[in-house]
Amino acid sequence: MSSTFGTIFRISTWGESHGPALGVVVDGCPSGMELSEADIQADLDRRRPGQSALTTPRNEADRVEILSGVFEGKTTVTPISLLIRNADQRSNDYSEMESLYRPGHADLAYDLKYGFRDHRGGGRSSARETAGRVAAGAIARKLLERACGARILAWVSQVGSERAGALDPLAVTREAIEANAVRCPDAGAAARMAAAVEAARKARDSVGGVVDFAIANPPAGIGEPVFDRVEAELAKAMLSIPASKGFEIGEGFRAAEMRGSEHNDPILHDASGFSFASNHAGGTYGGIAVGSPIVGRVAFKPTATIGLEQKTVSRSGEPAVLAARGRHDPCVALRAPAVVEAMAALVLADLWLRDRARKGVFGLE
Amino acid sequence: MSSTFGTIFRISTWGESHGPALGVVVDGCPSGMELSEADIQADLDRRRPGQSALTTPRNEADRVEILSGVFEGKTTVTPISLLIRNADQRSNDYSEMESLYRPGHADLAYDLKYGFRDHRGGGRSSARETAGRVAAGAIARKLLERACGARILAWVSQVGSERAGALDPLAVTREAIEANAVRCPDAGAAARMAAAVEAARKARDSVGGVVDFAIANPPAGIGEPVFDRVEAELAKAMLSIPASKGFEIGEGFRAAEMRGSEHNDPILHDASGFSFASNHAGGTYGGIAVGSPIVGRVAFKPTATIGLEQKTVSRSGEPAVLAARGRHDPCVALRAPAVVEAMAALVLADLWLRDRARKGVFGLE
Amino acid sequence: MSSTFGTIFRISTWGESHGPALGVVVDGCPSGMELSEADIQADLDRRRPGQSALTTPRNEADRVEILSGVFEGKTTVTPISLLIRNADQRSNDYSEMESLYRPGHADLAYDLKYGFRDHRGGGRSSARETAGRVAAGAIARKLLERACGARILAWVSQVGSERAGALDPLAVTREAIEANAVRCPDAGAAARMAAAVEAARKARDSVGGVVDFAIANPPAGIGEPVFDRVEAELAKAMLSIPASKGFEIGEGFRAAEMRGSEHNDPILHDASGFSFASNHAGGTYGGIAVGSPIVGRVAFKPTATIGLEQKTVSRSGEPAVLAARGRHDPCVALRAPAVVEAMAALVLADLWLRDRARKGVFGLE
Amino acid sequence: MSSTFGTIFRISTWGESHGPALGVVVDGCPSGMELSEADIQADLDRRRPGQSALTTPRNEADRVEILSGVFEGKTTVTPISLLIRNADQRSNDYSEMESLYRPGHADLAYDLKYGFRDHRGGGRSSARETAGRVAAGAIARKLLERACGARILAWVSQVGSERAGALDPLAVTREAIEANAVRCPDAGAAARMAAAVEAARKARDSVGGVVDFAIANPPAGIGEPVFDRVEAELAKAMLSIPASKGFEIGEGFRAAEMRGSEHNDPILHDASGFSFASNHAGGTYGGIAVGSPIVGRVAFKPTATIGLEQKTVSRSGEPAVLAARGRHDPCVALRAPAVVEAMAALVLADLWLRDRARKGVFGLE
Repeated sequence: MSSTFGTIFRISTWGESHGPALGVVVDGCPSGMELSEADIQADLDRRRPGQSALTTPRNEADRVEILSGVFEGKTTVTPISLLIRNADQRSNDYSEMESLYRPGHADLAYDLKYGFRDHRGGGRSSARETAGRVAAGAIARKLLERACGARILAWVSQVGSERAGALDPLAVTREAIEANAVRCPDAGAAARMAAAVEAARKARDSVGGVVDFAIANPPAGIGEPVFDRVEAELAKAMLSIPASKGFEIGEGFRAAEMRGSEHNDPILHDASGFSFASNHAGGTYGGIAVGSPIVGRVAFKPTATIGLEQKTVSRSGEPAVLAARGRHDPCVALRAPAVVEAMAALVLADLWLRDRARKGVFGLE
Repeated sequence: MSSTFGTIFRISTWGESHGPALGVVVDGCPSGMELSEADIQADLDRRRPGQSALTTPRNEADRVEILSGVFEGKTTVTPISLLIRNADQRSNDYSEMESLYRPGHADLAYDLKYGFRDHRGGGRSSARETAGRVAAGAIARKLLERACGARILAWVSQVGSERAGALDPLAVTREAIEANAVRCPDAGAAARMAAAVEAARKARDSVGGVVDFAIANPPAGIGEPVFDRVEAELAKAMLSIPASKGFEIGEGFRAAEMRGSEHNDPILHDASGFSFASNHAGGTYGGIAVGSPIVGRVAFKPTATIGLEQKTVSRSGEPAVLAARGRHDPCVALRAPAVVEAMAALVLADLWLRDRARKGVFGLE
Repeated sequence: MSSTFGTIFRISTWGESHGPALGVVVDGCPSGMELSEADIQADLDRRRPGQSALTTPRNEADRVEILSGVFEGKTTVTPISLLIRNADQRSNDYSEMESLYRPGHADLAYDLKYGFRDHRGGGRSSARETAGRVAAGAIARKLLERACGARILAWVSQVGSERAGALDPLAVTREAIEANAVRCPDAGAAARMAAAVEAARKARDSVGGVVDFAIANPPAGIGEPVFDRVEAELAKAMLSIPASKGFEIGEGFRAAEMRGSEHNDPILHDASGFSFASNHAGGTYGGIAVGSPIVGRVAFKPTATIGLEQKTVSRSGEPAVLAARGRHDPCVALRAPAVVEAMAALVLADLWLRDRARKGVFGLE
Repeated sequence: MSSTFGTIFRISTWGESHGPALGVVVDGCPSGMELSEADIQADLDRRRPGQSALTTPRNEADRVEILSGVFEGKTTVTPISLLIRNADQRSNDYSEMESLYRPGHADLAYDLKYGFRDHRGGGRSSARETAGRVAAGAIARKLLERACGARILAWVSQVGSERAGALDPLAVTREAIEANAVRCPDAGAAARMAAAVEAARKARDSVGGVVDFAIANPPAGIGEPVFDRVEAELAKAMLSIPASKGFEIGEGFRAAEMRGSEHNDPILHDASGFSFASNHAGGTYGGIAVGSPIVGRVAFKPTATIGLEQKTVSRSGEPAVLAARGRHDPCVALRAPAVVEAMAALVLADLWLRDRARKGVFGLE
C-alpha cells in the first residue's frame, strides 16, 4: 500500500469503510494559517453520502475532529491529524462479499495481491477512503486561496451521453454548481443528467460520467519538469481516485485532431505582463503553469455495484449469481467533484511549496 | 526540476538538446541480468530523429555507452550510467529563440519560473530529453521480459482525424508496428495517416495524434493503492512526456457513457485460475493489476514548432512574427511509441519490485 | 516539518505534548500478521512517564487504540492508525514558556524557524512525541521477530560518569534490563547509576547517559549502499530522537585508536556457513548486515529542564531568570531504551522489505 | 542499492572503482549561479589519491567534466551531470579478490546480498565512489557560500592515539588545514600523527582516525523535525561514508557525563539579536539550526586493506592467507576531510532549500 501523497505538502490517509474511523495526517502546511473544523467540514459535506435522492442512502455525518497541529486557531506547522468516525456501517449488508467476487470491484485484485482483506464494504478500496483526501484538500485549498489567490472548482459535465454545453471555465461559480443535485452548472443539461441517473437507478443499473475542473489564478511558475510536470502530477492525482478512467488537460484528446497553427496559443504582452490569446494548452507549457487557468477533465466509470443480477464466481471458484443489496450510488461522478477539487488542491499546494524552495535564490525570477 | 522517476527502480535523466551529451542513471536493477549496449540501442533507434521522411531531418546516431553497473556482461545492481553524445546540433538555427517566445513552447514558462535558460533548441524542454527515458526503459523492459514474461507494445492509433480500425491489442506485433513509418499496425489507416502528416508538413503546419499501448502478461498483484495505483503511475508517466495532453486506461472517456452492467467485466474461473470475460477495465481493479492486459492511450498535441508565420512577442514584450526554420517533426506522435513503451516499462518494473518487497512474508498470497 | 520515516515500512507521527491526542500511521506492514493493542501497549508502558521515582511524575496511561488496518485480529496491509489520548496535561505549569526561552530547549529555534508555536510543554519538540515512534516500533519489532527471528534490545550503559561493565550483547536479556529502574543489566552499575540520577534530582539538576543496543540475528543482506547503509539509517534514526548527541556502530570512536590488524574481523567458514571470529565492525560491512549482531550506542545529553535558576531572555529579548517548575525527568536516558529499540526496529523492518524487493529475481543470492 | 541522496538538492552517484568512469547527477541547484569545472576540481584535488607519501600511490588526476546544466557559465537549474574518467586502474593487482574474501571489506557482504559483484578494487564499495560525492558537494558548498555566507571546514583531529589540542572551530582556516599532509591545523599534533601513519605503514598495517567539522554561519532555522533534524541528516550523511563508525554533534558522548546546568547554553540578546554564551549543543536545538556554528566529529576505522598476512577464507569456504598487494592508504581519515565537508554541504544545501519552501508564507518568521 502507499497511502502517502505529496513531497512537501504531504498527506497520509488511513481507514476502512467499516472500521471505527478514518482520517488523514497533513504534514507541511505553513505556520500561521487560521484553521478550524468548519473550514474542512464544508468540503466534507459536499462529498458525503446521503445528500440527495440521486446518491447512496448511507447516512454519514462525516464530522471531522482536529487532533493536532492547530494552536489558538492557527496552524503551527506540525502535522495536522484529522479524525472522522464511521457511524452508519451496517456491515451485514455486505456478508456476501466475503464469499463472492463482485464484478468491477477490487475484491479479487486484493486477494491476488494481499491474500487477506477486510471484505466489509470494500475495506480500503471503498470510495469512502476519499473522505480523508477531501479533508486534507480543504486545508490545501485554503492555503492556496489565502497565500496565492487561486480558486479551484469542479463540476459534472457529462452523465452517460448527456453533456453540458460549452462553458467558460472562469465564469462557473460554486453557486451554479451547487444549484442542483447533479452539480452541473448548465441547468438544462443538469435536468437531463438527473433523468439519466434516475433511469439507471430504476433499471437497477448505474451510469458513468465526466467531471471538469478549473483552477483560476494558479501561481505562475509551479511545476517541476521533467517528470513532476503540473499535468503529470494532476494526472496521477486524478487517476488515483476510485473509478476514474481518463484524464485530459486543455484540449486533451481533441488536441490529436488539431493542427499546430490552431492549437498554439498566441502570446501577448501588455502593461500587466505576458498573457495568451487562447488557452488550448490548459494553462501549462513544458509542465509549468504560466498563470492562465488550468483546466482539465476526469472520466469516471459507472458504479460497479448494481442491483441487476450478474454472473460471477466465489472465492473458491464456483459459479454464482450476484445481485447487490448494499446501498450504493447509481453514478459515482455526482459525488466526485469534491474529490477532484481536493486532489487538484493537494497537487497545487505541493508544487507551489516545491517551487518556493528554489525561487529567488539568485534573484533572477 | 525533478528529473528522478521511480521508487525502487529509479532513474535520473540529465542533458539538454544542445549540450555536449545527455544520459540517465538507472538505480535498482537487480543483479545478474545480461545487459549490453545492443539491448538499449534497439529502442533508441526507434526513437531517434531522421528515421524517415515523416520525421525531423536532424540526424542523431544516438549511440549509447554503458559507463557503470555492468561487469562481465551482467548487471551488478550498482547504478547503470548511460551516456549519449549529442552530434548534430546546429544551434545557430535557434538564434531567434533567444529573443522571441515561440507559441506552444515552454520558453516563456521557463523564463517565468527560472529566469534563465539554455535557449538552444529548447534546452531541457526539448523532446530530445526523452532519449534518456528510452535508454532506461530498455533496461526495465528487459527486466520485465526476463523475470515476468511481460511484453509492452505501443503504436500510433490516430493522426489528426485518421483513426486505426478496431484492433485486438494482444494480436498486435512489433513487426506490424514497424512495417510502416507511421508505426500503425493497421496498414490501410497507416497510409491515410502518412498522407495527413505529409499534408501538414507541406502546409508548413503540424498535426496531433494518439498512441495506444498494451502490456501483455503483466505481473498480477502489482499496484500500490490508494495513491500509487497502476493507472495513476501510468497516467503520471505518460503526462510527463512532452506534448502529451490526455491519458486513458481501458475504456477511458468512453466509460462515462456506459452502464455498469455493460462495463463490469464478468469474472470466470477454470483450471488455470481466475480470468475475465472482457477487459473494459483495462487490466486493473482498485489500482491493482490482475494479469489481464493493461491497455490504454495517450493523446499528443500537434508539434508546436511550425513553419507558418505566427504572431508572438519578444522577451522584452515587443510584438514579433515568427516562422520556424529549425528542423522539426510535423507529428510528434510518430516517434512517441518508443517513449510510451519506455515509460510503461519504468512504471511496471518499479511497481513489480515494490510489490515483491512485501509479497509472501506471511505466506498468504 | 518532516514527520514521515521510512521508504516501504513508513510511519507518520503526529501530536503535541498538550494537544488532545497523539498518534502514528504505519503504512507498509505486510498482511496476515496477528496484531492487537496488547502487542503495542507493552512497549509503550516501558516508555511512558511515571514508572518510578527516577522519572517524571507526569502520569500518562498512554493507552493505545487501533483505528484501522487490522481485521479479525490480523493486519490487512492497509495503513494502521494508532491513537493515544493525552490525559494528564496541566498546561498551566508551562505558562512561563510562553514568554521565556528555556536554555537547552527548542523554544527559540522554533520561533526562529516557524514564528509561531504551541508553547505548552514544548509542543511537538517534547519527548512525548516519541510515544508514536514506540507504538509504531512495536509493530516493526513484531514483524522482525515473526518473519526473521531478529531480536532487538537496548539498555542504559552509562549515567554521568557511572558505566556498566563489559557485557556480551548477546547475553543481555529483557529480564535483566527491566530488573531495575535504571534499565541497566549490570545490577551493580545500575545501583550507582540510580544514585547518580537521585543526586542530580536532589541538586535540582539533571544528568546525561548512554544507551547501548544490540540486534541479534538480523536478516543478512539488508542495507542499501551507498547512502542507505544500515549504519547510516540507524545513525539518522537515533540522532532524530530528542536529546541524542552521538552514535556509534561497533567499536565507534574506539576504532580510531585501533590498527587494521586489530580491527578487522577474521572470516570463518564451517558447515553452517560464513561467520566472523570477532565483531569489531558491529555487524555490517560496506553498509550491509552480514548476520552478526548489530551493536551500537547512542549518547543522550542531560535533560534541559532543571530546577536550578538559569539566566535567560524573554521573547522580546529582556534578561530573565528561569527555574523550571514543570515535571521532568532528571535523566532522559532512562526512558530512552524503548525509543532506541523502536527506531532500530523501524530501520530494520524498512531495510528488510527494501532488500526483499530485488532479492532472488535472477536467483543468484 | 540506493545511490540518491537529498530531497530537493538531490544527487545520484554512479561508478565503480575499475569501470571506465564515475560521476554524479546533481538535481535541484537553483538557476543563475556561476559554475565552472574549476569550482569542483579544487575539492576533488583534496580528495584524490597520490597527494603525499602518506596516502595511496594510485595516481588519479580525477579531472571533472560538466556535461549538462550549465549554460554561458551559469547554472540553468537543469540537472548537472559530472563525469570523471578512471585512468590508473591496474585491476590485475586485485585478482585475488575474486576468490578470497578480504577481512574488514564488503566482499562477503556483497556476495550475501547480491550474489554477483565487480570484484576489481572493491567495485562500488571502494572509497573511490566518494569522488562523485565530493564533486557534488563542491556545488552545494558554492551555493551555501554565495547564497547564505556559510563556510564549511573539516580536518583531522585524531590519528590512532594522537590527538589535536583544543581548537576554536571558528579560528580554524583552510590554510592551517592544508599546511600539512595530515590535514590537522595543530602543527605539533600533525607531526605526531604523520609519524603514527608512517609507523603503521612500515608495519604493513593501518590506523584509524577522527575528522572534526565546523560549519560557520549556517542559515538559522534549517532542519525539519521530527525526523529530518539537522543532526539526524548529518549523522546519516557521515555514517554513509565508507569506513565511518561514529558521529557526534556538539559535546557528543561527552554530554553523557555532564549535568544539565553545565550543558545548557545560556541564551543572550543584544542589538544583533539572540545568541548563546556557549555552544555545547553544537549549533542545533530540537533539530533546528539557530545560527551558531554547527560542530561535530566523525570516527573512521583503520583501513581494512593491510599488507600483513591475515587468515581468511575463499568464496568456496576454504581457509586461506591474504597479504594485500594492492595500493592503499594506511589511514583513510587523511583523505576524509574533503568527503566530510562534501556531505555536510549536501545536507545543508538540501535542508536550506527545504526550509525556504515554507518560509514566510504567512509572514511570521
